[in-house]
Amino acid sequence: MPRNKAYLDCLQRQQAQELWRQKLTDSGYFDHLPDETMAVPDALGRVTACSVYARQSAPHYNSAAMDGIAVRAQDTYGAQETTPKRLTLRSPGQSFTPGCCCMVDTGDVMPAGTNAVVMIEDVHIDAGEAEIVAAAAPWQHVRIIGEDIVASELVVPEYQVITPVMIAALLAAGLESVAVLKKPRVAIIPTGDEIVATKDELIPGTILDVNSHMLAAAVSEWGGEALKQSIVKDDGQALRRAVFASLTVSDMVVVNAGTSAGSEDFTASVLGDLGEVLVHGVAIKPGKPVILAVCQGKPVIGLPGYPVSAMLTAELFIRDVLLARQKRPCPEATIVEASLVKQVASPVGVEEFIRVSVGNVQGRMVAAPLGRGAGLISSLAKAQGLISVGPASQGIQAGAAVSVTLLGKSRPENTLLAVGSHDLALELLGIFLRRRLEHTSLSCANVGSMGGVMAIRNNEAHIAGIHLLDEQTGCYNLAFVKKYLPNTGWRLVHMAMRQQGLMVMPGNPKKIAGLADLARPDITFVNRQRGSGTRMLLDYDLVKAGIGPEQIAGYEKEVGTHMAVAATVAAEAADAGLGVQAAALALGLDFIPVASEQYDLLLNFPPDDDREKAIIAILESAEFRNEVESWGGYDLSGAGRTIAVAGETGKNLEME
Amino acid sequence: MPRNKAYLDCLQRQQAQELWRQKLTDSGYFDHLPDETMAVPDALGRVTACSVYARQSAPHYNSAAMDGIAVRAQDTYGAQETTPKRLTLRSPGQSFTPGCCCMVDTGDVMPAGTNAVVMIEDVHIDAGEAEIVAAAAPWQHVRIIGEDIVASELVVPEYQVITPVMIAALLAAGLESVAVLKKPRVAIIPTGDEIVATKDELIPGTILDVNSHMLAAAVSEWGGEALKQSIVKDDGQALRRAVFASLTVSDMVVVNAGTSAGSEDFTASVLGDLGEVLVHGVAIKPGKPVILAVCQGKPVIGLPGYPVSAMLTAELFIRDVLLARQKRPCPEATIVEASLVKQVASPVGVEEFIRVSVGNVQGRMVAAPLGRGAGLISSLAKAQGLISVGPASQGIQAGAAVSVTLLGKSRPENTLLAVGSHDLALELLGIFLRRRLEHTSLSCANVGSMGGVMAIRNNEAHIAGIHLLDEQTGCYNLAFVKKYLPNTGWRLVHMAMRQQGLMVMPGNPKKIAGLADLARPDITFVNRQRGSGTRMLLDYDLVKAGIGPEQIAGYEKEVGTHMAVAATVAAEAADAGLGVQAAALALGLDFIPVASEQYDLLLNFPPDDDREKAIIAILESAEFRNEVESWGGYDLSGAGRTIAVAGETGKNLEME
Repeated sequence: MPRNKAYLDCLQRQQAQELWRQKLTDSGYFDHLPDETMAVPDALGRVTACSVYARQSAPHYNSAAMDGIAVRAQDTYGAQETTPKRLTLRSPGQSFTPGCCCMVDTGDVMPAGTNAVVMIEDVHIDAGEAEIVAAAAPWQHVRIIGEDIVASELVVPEYQVITPVMIAALLAAGLESVAVLKKPRVAIIPTGDEIVATKDELIPGTILDVNSHMLAAAVSEWGGEALKQSIVKDDGQALRRAVFASLTVSDMVVVNAGTSAGSEDFTASVLGDLGEVLVHGVAIKPGKPVILAVCQGKPVIGLPGYPVSAMLTAELFIRDVLLARQKRPCPEATIVEASLVKQVASPVGVEEFIRVSVGNVQGRMVAAPLGRGAGLISSLAKAQGLISVGPASQGIQAGAAVSVTLLGKSRPENTLLAVGSHDLALELLGIFLRRRLEHTSLSCANVGSMGGVMAIRNNEAHIAGIHLLDEQTGCYNLAFVKKYLPNTGWRLVHMAMRQQGLMVMPGNPKKIAGLADLARPDITFVNRQRGSGTRMLLDYDLVKAGIGPEQIAGYEKEVGTHMAVAATVAAEAADAGLGVQAAALALGLDFIPVASEQYDLLLNFPPDDDREKAIIAILESAEFRNEVESWGGYDLSGAGRTIAVAGETGKNLEME
Repeated sequence: MPRNKAYLDCLQRQQAQELWRQKLTDSGYFDHLPDETMAVPDALGRVTACSVYARQSAPHYNSAAMDGIAVRAQDTYGAQETTPKRLTLRSPGQSFTPGCCCMVDTGDVMPAGTNAVVMIEDVHIDAGEAEIVAAAAPWQHVRIIGEDIVASELVVPEYQVITPVMIAALLAAGLESVAVLKKPRVAIIPTGDEIVATKDELIPGTILDVNSHMLAAAVSEWGGEALKQSIVKDDGQALRRAVFASLTVSDMVVVNAGTSAGSEDFTASVLGDLGEVLVHGVAIKPGKPVILAVCQGKPVIGLPGYPVSAMLTAELFIRDVLLARQKRPCPEATIVEASLVKQVASPVGVEEFIRVSVGNVQGRMVAAPLGRGAGLISSLAKAQGLISVGPASQGIQAGAAVSVTLLGKSRPENTLLAVGSHDLALELLGIFLRRRLEHTSLSCANVGSMGGVMAIRNNEAHIAGIHLLDEQTGCYNLAFVKKYLPNTGWRLVHMAMRQQGLMVMPGNPKKIAGLADLARPDITFVNRQRGSGTRMLLDYDLVKAGIGPEQIAGYEKEVGTHMAVAATVAAEAADAGLGVQAAALALGLDFIPVASEQYDLLLNFPPDDDREKAIIAILESAEFRNEVESWGGYDLSGAGRTIAVAGETGKNLEME
């Protein structure tokens, strides 16, 4: 059975998109758009439903463009320095007669009969007369009606997004209201027996309806109006009624989820009943079970239930339809070329979308894949870019060039990539860094200490947190850095001495006293991944204690962070795990100290980089030290001290 | 007296911006930002006020990741094809005991005591027992609590703009509400005796308050909340009260205008009274009289009154402060390099900002300056980009490279530049074009027919509308095109025969019968600019009639479009002007026919270009023809016919 059998009957993504778009076009979905009339000042960001023409001219009267006197140009002809002309000055109430003049300020109405302004600087006023020494050209220094906008002229064409300056132009052209396209209404129907609407209803076995809110927000970002519907149970009749009712009040219906082929998945049959299912299943990962249908001439889409799948399919199949319905241009995707830091495998026949962190390391753009589970909401929130592995490919090698579509307003040049050992203080460093260097953000990928050293070697990260114990010397970090980074630029900076130990359930029900107890048959353990400093510490201490891995139940179960260890213990999925005290405290676990270890940062910046300086300054700051030490198990008294710098091997600033 | 004396005492733009920003920083304006708590689903687009940590783990229970049976892994050890293990199947109600198993669906809670799932495909169910043929590893096919998010982990750092996926992450992490920065409130105070709030109050000498609405919309786009205040008369005490009251309810106050040094300009003295005026006058054009002040630790800014000045100074001095107050990144300006099509002069010592149209013509980006009057709202609405002429420069030569900052979401590659003779039908062509080719827009610069021919020659435009009468032959256009465009690619396409004539006031009060009457001493005329086809037609007919220009009062008054001619006559600023019948009809003027003339389009596209094809198809369409002919004075019976194509001079498809 081929690995990708599930995708054999599926359309490719582009085919599905074209079929869907064409069917909607044919059914007139993008024509005859309903409009509504709004007051001009309220229409910001809306789309004009038709071309708008000026109702009045701007300026709407002939006005003086300078402070001075308004004259009839003919009366000034012949005026020269040697033969000035004198004109009788009329007071504001008096009407103008040929041969006289009137004082005017900028913006004043030109008195009837006048057709030019002489600037006040060029006039000598004396005894009710104005003396001028140069002829005025007709209409000089006069703003004529319609100089800016002429009544009946086009002000804003149809299907334009209204901007602040268009609001000004519309108002100046005498328009008080404007016809704009109605926002398309998108009904969102959550379905599933396990879905609950509020946190209060959440019990084991139920899932909070997170997707509806995420999709509603996305619809709103795409210019639509989301109509969130009540949760529908796994019941074909109930779903049919909900979709039917939604069709009458909306321009698009989204059913989430029930789109697979399971016994409780009714979406496809309901949509087939109410209209035509164009596509059920697309050769994409995640998001395969998407359903594209047209009912009553309106798009109806079934999205898969996992959040990452739901968001991806919404981006692929809802966004463009919604924008086209509003005649809005699709925002141009920003694509950067980057080097992939980690190999990704992907089945043939499927287009796989993978979320990544992106940053510029030593002048080279790099992309680090995030966790790929369809259920990992955290990967959605952390991602800065998306890469796709085409259906013809089995995957992408580490180091290969990839095109990364940036998500939202991500700016890779502001992102610092921390790829190494996980530490809670590293996240805090990111927060402090952002306060010092505006808009800088830290993206942490937890690949363990050795992974961090390798990432620095390959210029794939700015920062690696490491705690690598040299079994020969019992010393930390420097030996590894010197061995693996002989020729590259780096700086090794001390961050913390931290307490590692065993996390156990509160009250320590299994009476675990230390590492030796892990060999007890009634104890299950959760391990850290190979290459992590914590794993190396464990293995070093097990050797010292003469315990073999095969004696420990759960030794083979690996997770990637201290918090994941703590969560596994808290979930009673293991009796003990090795990690930092802060993680135990965070989840209310008991903690049995095992060792104090040295956690350092390997920094990889060009010389004199502001970001490196900021990191060191933060590590040295009392504010940062106090906050980290308050968590328990941390000693930051030497934080920020440079241990060694690349190339200075002769005079290494080794720690005493 | 140097031309730019007015700017001698002014700060340069950057100095002013830095001074302003520094003073606000020193006064703590960008720290201690007030926050408010919102329901997570409502917080889209808002900025987190602090780092948000998970309140609960996701998943929040250990769940089956596959359909199958839940087992205790230890009970399966030793199972093989040859020696299967049989486990007693418990029904859902019964609790698990070692040695038995339970059926589970994906997402189900793992029964207490179980720690692995065997996929249903790998199980043989028979007589209340499940037979398995391979050992299960502990925790296989189980999603463990916290696999996605661990309680107490960082979910969203401080000062992040909340996106749809962050909403999902926050909800999944057990957060129902989130602290976000309050939107900064910006009080906008319109001032001036001449300003009125509604169109109903508008009489000659008054100006509609357009700026407040434009500025309020801009504030809203920049994430703030605009508080529009009542109009304040030119009265220092009233203005003082208004600013003082606004300071108590807002985070920033904008006074518009009264910022010059005139007798009725109170803004500077009022702000000096209430706080400190840091800057009064910046060496920019337009926008010089801007006032930057700090009162009660809050920014207070006086903007000049002309709309273009007000908008530019808002962009330069309000936007970044408002974004910084919200910890939002400044949107990255998109800058394109372009070739300037027309020389611009600019005084030394002043940084001048000029709005431009931008398009890509035959692979080269070109920028065409728009009208530069500070009062030209139309130039604001039409502009796609902004260029600046530095203070050390006297201007920029035609053809020089300029850096154009694109405004809003402008996409130069979608813009067609029409640079030539003005015709109302050209605007309509733009509207029709946008319907055929989504998001394409037409930008018209009216530089006259000869200007259009030259623009095509220099590859500065895609389209030139021309009506050039050859005085020798009495024929239109082709001779000029052949003469001036010997070697370039172009296509000459017929658009319309149109009626030119004299526009006069309704009822023709001066009894004007034809061009000969223009020589009458009681008649004033408004002319079109040199190089325009209409001007050439006039001059040709005047020569025929034996009338010299000096005999015509107003011959020297030039305007740029048919509509401007009509507006000048309608404003009684001239008794007559030459132009197309449609313009006269639009403004309700009488029309005395003078000549029928041939108006053609000179197209400049690469071979087989879709846009060229679309233009010709539109010209040939009954829909377009009917609409234009309905205006009166147009005959489109030959519209769309190719008259000649460059390089085919031997077999020119000349009109019969």
